[in-house]
Amino acid sequence: MVKKLLDNKETLVADMLAGYAAAYPGRVVANGNLLCRREQKEKGKVGVVVANGSGHEPAMIDLVGKGLLDVNVCGELFTAPPPFDILEGIKAADRGAGVLLLVSSHQGDILNASMAAMMAKAEGICVGTEILYDDISSAPPETPAERRGTAGLFFCWKTACAAAELGWPLDACARIARKTRDNLRTLSVAVRPGTHPITGEATFDLPEDEIEVGMGVHGEPGSGRMKLPRAKELAAYMLERIVADRPYGAGENVMVLLNSAGATTRMELLIVYKSIAAILGQLGIKVARSWVGCYVTTQEMAGLSISLCAADEELLALYDFPADSPLFHLPF
Amino acid sequence: MVKKLLDNKETLVADMLAGYAAAYPGRVVANGNLLCRREQKEKGKVGVVVANGSGHEPAMIDLVGKGLLDVNVCGELFTAPPPFDILEGIKAADRGAGVLLLVSSHQGDILNASMAAMMAKAEGICVGTEILYDDISSAPPETPAERRGTAGLFFCWKTACAAAELGWPLDACARIARKTRDNLRTLSVAVRPGTHPITGEATFDLPEDEIEVGMGVHGEPGSGRMKLPRAKELAAYMLERIVADRPYGAGENVMVLLNSAGATTRMELLIVYKSIAAILGQLGIKVARSWVGCYVTTQEMAGLSISLCAADEELLALYDFPADSPLFHLPF
Repeated sequence: MVKKLLDNKETLVADMLAGYAAAYPGRVVANGNLLCRREQKEKGKVGVVVANGSGHEPAMIDLVGKGLLDVNVCGELFTAPPPFDILEGIKAADRGAGVLLLVSSHQGDILNASMAAMMAKAEGICVGTEILYDDISSAPPETPAERRGTAGLFFCWKTACAAAELGWPLDACARIARKTRDNLRTLSVAVRPGTHPITGEATFDLPEDEIEVGMGVHGEPGSGRMKLPRAKELAAYMLERIVADRPYGAGENVMVLLNSAGATTRMELLIVYKSIAAILGQLGIKVARSWVGCYVTTQEMAGLSISLCAADEELLALYDFPADSPLFHLPF
Repeated sequence: MVKKLLDNKETLVADMLAGYAAAYPGRVVANGNLLCRREQKEKGKVGVVVANGSGHEPAMIDLVGKGLLDVNVCGELFTAPPPFDILEGIKAADRGAGVLLLVSSHQGDILNASMAAMMAKAEGICVGTEILYDDISSAPPETPAERRGTAGLFFCWKTACAAAELGWPLDACARIARKTRDNLRTLSVAVRPGTHPITGEATFDLPEDEIEVGMGVHGEPGSGRMKLPRAKELAAYMLERIVADRPYGAGENVMVLLNSAGATTRMELLIVYKSIAAILGQLGIKVARSWVGCYVTTQEMAGLSISLCAADEELLALYDFPADSPLFHLPF
């Protein structure tokens, strides 16, 4: 059975969005499966749109807001939204300066986003589509475009949305999304499965004393298993692989995201972060910004991901640009 | 076995605090088991201190900051900190205007806080101690002081800390803590146990198709069990009991906190919130402020609590007073 607090499996996402709109009436408007910023944007601002399957909350519903996304097109559970919904999202975000459609690299998401972008262009809307990826376990460094999008994409949303908020043109916003993506690497581990809220099944199987390295945000298989390590051993193992994939050099500024997949507690995250800070310090890599929390989940799966994003002055300034959602607030 | 990402069971809390201080170096200083605001407070401000067992993160570590707590004395897992630690916390918070010690009502917490307050007074520090409680399932309305403190105490911390930040004297800050407490009611339900991070045992047992009503934040037994309801039925049941305990009248302004105990997903919370908003609307009770999120946890236990706090203009203004921590930011 599904031991979750739900009303109707058929209307899971619609119910969630109705609840979100009720909880944050001053921030967002829910229009079908579109979650839109309430605040009227100025004409001439590039609209930023994402279109994702649901079930990963707080991502991405909690990143609609000032300095963040204009529209989140919410798909059904773990399912890319259909092209017509994405088209509606593009139209809702269009203020005459074009729309940046940011796509997390998964086959269905890319297909549906591409179709929606074509339809929008046919209607005369200028759309830039950027495919974003960060998961180093899903393809070798030589073929980065075959990699999946996971939690680290947060840095791409944040910087590209800041560029849009600053009034930068579409091609400049798109450049920022690509630059952030190319500076970014993520590795994930899974510790315990979550429960699929419709089928009630575990999202994957894992022996009681093992973890899976490199698992995707829908439970996609990772690159291997290991015995449950201590937190400091895990941090060292993960950072070694991340730093090998894109050499982050001594003296380089990085932004760090340590994300819980759901049930991994904040206590565990902080214990792991203690070692992350120490190891990066030993490597001479400077932590310019850090974010430790529960952001992209796979229901109540236990596990975590570490993301590093190299940050020059341009990206740091965009990261620091004011943003406001229930999940994320800057400046501090 | 304990399938969690930890280093050493003996140093669980110390490791967590070291990680917290590393993640938020500009915000806090960890000094042994004390987590202190980094920012220098002005002389003459009342210091606000809490002293709690750990294991409920993000509470209370994430409520140290501007407009929030001055010092959090962090006990070991689910264990009140010893009186000498609390005494150190009181001294660290003292800026010459006295210290407000806010205690969540649990036997060990009250005992140790009372001893610490006595010792501090013997050293010439002016200490006001307020015992706070909100859980309607743990004692009848006639004996409120026998009730436990649970997630709803957030409202007491928020308003009392705002009063302190505004420079109000100790007795006025204490009055606000009591007023908020007396306006406040919480009811919790547990859906699945969490795992004790030291023993590896489930924090309680529960049949696969039942939930427990009224469970405490350490897994204390509740007032009864029921078959897993739908979200809307659960919201109606819980609100009926809360509103019966302290009649919240039509036209009254309330602040609402919907808190996940850990593994209950944001999707579930929002689906429940949809019904909370609808039911309160039918009753004519006005939701003046709402907060939906994961705040007081019992490790990765699944479950939630609903808190209502009647709010007149004074309490609303104190709630809205600027505050800033990684968990909680105002104004929006």
